[in-house]
Amino acid sequence: MKIGVLGTGVVGQTLGGKLVALGHDVMMGARSADNEKVLGFARQTGGKAGSFGDAIRHAEIVVNATRGDGAVPAIRQGDAWLDGKVLIDVSNPLDFSKGFPPSLSVSNTDSLGETIQRTFPQARVVKSLNTVTAAIMIAPGKLPGAHSIFVSGNDAEAKAQTADLLRSFGWQSIIDLGDITTARGVEQYVSLWVRLLGALGTAEFNIAVVK
Amino acid sequence: MKIGVLGTGVVGQTLGGKLVALGHDVMMGARSADNEKVLGFARQTGGKAGSFGDAIRHAEIVVNATRGDGAVPAIRQGDAWLDGKVLIDVSNPLDFSKGFPPSLSVSNTDSLGETIQRTFPQARVVKSLNTVTAAIMIAPGKLPGAHSIFVSGNDAEAKAQTADLLRSFGWQSIIDLGDITTARGVEQYVSLWVRLLGALGTAEFNIAVVK
Repeated sequence: MKIGVLGTGVVGQTLGGKLVALGHDVMMGARSADNEKVLGFARQTGGKAGSFGDAIRHAEIVVNATRGDGAVPAIRQGDAWLDGKVLIDVSNPLDFSKGFPPSLSVSNTDSLGETIQRTFPQARVVKSLNTVTAAIMIAPGKLPGAHSIFVSGNDAEAKAQTADLLRSFGWQSIIDLGDITTARGVEQYVSLWVRLLGALGTAEFNIAVVK
Repeated sequence: MKIGVLGTGVVGQTLGGKLVALGHDVMMGARSADNEKVLGFARQTGGKAGSFGDAIRHAEIVVNATRGDGAVPAIRQGDAWLDGKVLIDVSNPLDFSKGFPPSLSVSNTDSLGETIQRTFPQARVVKSLNTVTAAIMIAPGKLPGAHSIFVSGNDAEAKAQTADLLRSFGWQSIIDLGDITTARGVEQYVSLWVRLLGALGTAEFNIAVVK
């Protein structure tokens, strides 16, 4: 499948590398197509490099792995090629302006997932994977048992396609929370996640929903 | 142990009843000592009934099980008797003014737990149990495995006493998140909890932290 990964940080590199390894035709997008990190990705993985716009144009499925505050500007660079595409938003609206732990730049009565869906109504946005660190996103088997990952979005088929990708990463317990407003739940959970990071001393953890 | 339970709703009744059953000397407090529900508690459990002030005066450990917006006014009725006491805050700052699911009336850069600690510096506030429904608070064994409960607070001894109470309810996986600011984490998690309630169709669930 043709996948565009927006963002060249740890999350983008990790997801992009895994998607290439799974046989997908991946283009990573950066602010400019000659960005060092995006060229490094192409060199190291055999994936492709481009601008944000190039990556969206390339893609059947777009993965937003930018920093939260960069998401809307990045996606806007390719909004002419978003029509009907699945856009998996894995980012978090983290505000580090007051240091660590971060607060959220949007929360409680709105979310970044909703902001992206509202700003780009032609895309089919699915919020997912933002509740775990990059290493766990692509290798849930590093942790014991069937711990949980979530999908939020308005389009059932887009969520089903996202769930297929998640299963290809090894995810077994995929919980459909409902429409894109449920992104508030998984984004606000990140406020607990950062406190657990402090208490546990590792980012490699997750939660299993038990009933 | 002498325990004062503030609040006569499902959470207060459930916790109060369990604490009586465990042999504690429990007084439930309401806005007035002749409140129907607090008298019903005394009649049904053999516990005691009083005003919020009476319950705090009675207590070595105070449990705040009021509705979030009623917490500070309720505690204020007994603030003359709070000195040095452990105050376990199990409430959530839920705002139902826009219907269901609720948003939070305080979140992100503050929490109800912190508000209570700031307002009543003479108390030793521990945030706990707000992440599960009342039936699970007192009977975690209803769910399989060692799922998780959290404590947040500035006073180590107060957290240790709270953990003792939690263990007497059956809790095995008790995670100390850190100081009272970590109440932001567990209170914002409730935004995910209400979405999981919708997705799972039951309130009797919890999360297990897996690492």
